[in-house]
Amino acid sequence: MDMKVFLLLSLIGLASCDLPFLRTCMDAEDTNTKTLPTLCSNYKNIEYIYSEIAALKNENKALRASLAEQTNKFQNVTTLDNNKVAFSASITEGADVFTGPRTDSSPSVLIFNHVFTNIGNAYSNQTGIFTTPVKGVYQFTFMTFGNNTNTSGAILMKNGLHQVSTWESQGPDYSDTTSNTVILQLNQNDTVNMILWQGGKIHTSVFSGFLLFTV
Amino acid sequence: MDMKVFLLLSLIGLASCDLPFLRTCMDAEDTNTKTLPTLCSNYKNIEYIYSEIAALKNENKALRASLAEQTNKFQNVTTLDNNKVAFSASITEGADVFTGPRTDSSPSVLIFNHVFTNIGNAYSNQTGIFTTPVKGVYQFTFMTFGNNTNTSGAILMKNGLHQVSTWESQGPDYSDTTSNTVILQLNQNDTVNMILWQGGKIHTSVFSGFLLFTV
Amino acid sequence: MDMKVFLLLSLIGLASCDLPFLRTCMDAEDTNTKTLPTLCSNYKNIEYIYSEIAALKNENKALRASLAEQTNKFQNVTTLDNNKVAFSASITEGADVFTGPRTDSSPSVLIFNHVFTNIGNAYSNQTGIFTTPVKGVYQFTFMTFGNNTNTSGAILMKNGLHQVSTWESQGPDYSDTTSNTVILQLNQNDTVNMILWQGGKIHTSVFSGFLLFTV
Repeated sequence: MDMKVFLLLSLIGLASCDLPFLRTCMDAEDTNTKTLPTLCSNYKNIEYIYSEIAALKNENKALRASLAEQTNKFQNVTTLDNNKVAFSASITEGADVFTGPRTDSSPSVLIFNHVFTNIGNAYSNQTGIFTTPVKGVYQFTFMTFGNNTNTSGAILMKNGLHQVSTWESQGPDYSDTTSNTVILQLNQNDTVNMILWQGGKIHTSVFSGFLLFTV
Repeated sequence: MDMKVFLLLSLIGLASCDLPFLRTCMDAEDTNTKTLPTLCSNYKNIEYIYSEIAALKNENKALRASLAEQTNKFQNVTTLDNNKVAFSASITEGADVFTGPRTDSSPSVLIFNHVFTNIGNAYSNQTGIFTTPVKGVYQFTFMTFGNNTNTSGAILMKNGLHQVSTWESQGPDYSDTTSNTVILQLNQNDTVNMILWQGGKIHTSVFSGFLLFTV
Repeated sequence: MDMKVFLLLSLIGLASCDLPFLRTCMDAEDTNTKTLPTLCSNYKNIEYIYSEIAALKNENKALRASLAEQTNKFQNVTTLDNNKVAFSASITEGADVFTGPRTDSSPSVLIFNHVFTNIGNAYSNQTGIFTTPVKGVYQFTFMTFGNNTNTSGAILMKNGLHQVSTWESQGPDYSDTTSNTVILQLNQNDTVNMILWQGGKIHTSVFSGFLLFTV
């Protein structure tokens, strides 16, 4: 049999072969040529493998895209989670030393100078002002301690405007504690601080706040 | 050498070949038939490639499953994170205007009509009632401001039952601020609201709450 | 043509073939041997497939690594999220029953025996002590209710040291509510609890706290 005949036979085999067909590799005693690998069957297997590899590539492309999308979403969530903002500070005075009074010409900002906590560094113990580092919903709580010789309590201000307050008249009770809490939605760089009532005086007091969540 | 011999030789080679074996593609001068690709070596390579592709498919299947599981877990977490619930509202009264008193026949719910914040819209400034949108742990804080002519303070109710309260007697001090905080685990659709003491009256007051976390 | 010539022709074809080349599988009538699969073209295709599979394996290895990294990060976040710590408890007394006074020899810890909430079980209603289960930033709020026959208010202690307090003198007002809030950064196993002022007495009071976030 010469090459031409061999090729011709191969081509006849080739014309009738279907995908996929892995032919069993026969041992030397097996003479059934239909079960032997041929140029055609090898070729057809290779053709099938190409399609399989193309499918795997598409699948990996989809997996990469899905993982990237997931990673981005996760990044956004952890970035939000990393918005940790909380402060707490008190005014520390000696016995019988009071802060105040505020006058009209000096609507003095109360400076809570002793800092317990200042995560995010948004509260300044130099100015008494909390500046929001990120748009979000914040809770603020304050406590004032005063005595009967002056109006006590204080006012929580947002961007210079009254929000909530407490108030205690001068009176026969020798001391009074007041406290209040408010939750405010704030933009970035909004300011929150405490001021006294006109003529008011307070002793040791506390001002605290934290970010509940970003919006 | 005829085709029969050629095939026989191929099968002999095939019987002794190991996986994987990529034979070096020789140039024309090289006559060492052991290093040439043969039908058998090509076939064996193809057989090996099939097993590699099967392994890759299994691996991709595992990757898809793992990514899907991860995506679901993440979805649950972000759904929880999206449970943003916080409200804060005050009673705004003119000077010398007081809310109350409550009578036995009218255990009036205090309606904090001025809303600072109502993320999640769970507080109604029409009814004064906060209804939990989701099972979870919530913090509530309230402040009351009263004067000496009436009992002051208020009671925080959960589903109509007293939880915590503040109380100030009528007395010689001209005004009093009270404030209290409680953390409650609540089911969905539980209600939380404030009521007055019998005969009590309050002036400007504040009621706030937020979801700490779902459970 | 004998086998030697056949092999020689194959090797000549082999020396000039480029990657990748998938030859079209021809039908029997086509005699153009350049478009037929040959041992060489099959071999070259197999060689190309090996490199494709190696690339897919590398890609899958990278996907597995990326997914594992993502899963670990997510695990850390959800572990943090699972740090749910919140407690709220009150002292429940009958009418005219007061807790206190503290004496120097007994700086009695206030035991808030009625537990509203104790997620994470960090507060003990046997000892009145909150022990931090995890390093983090915590908010604490307390309310005291006293009357005019004793000093009222209380002191919040961290590891046995005063942090913040409220104070009401004995006086002509028949009752007084005080309340205060502080946010503290605490290490694991730090303790937080309330004590009375010397000679102080309080009636129904509340103590609450929760983990804002871990640090």
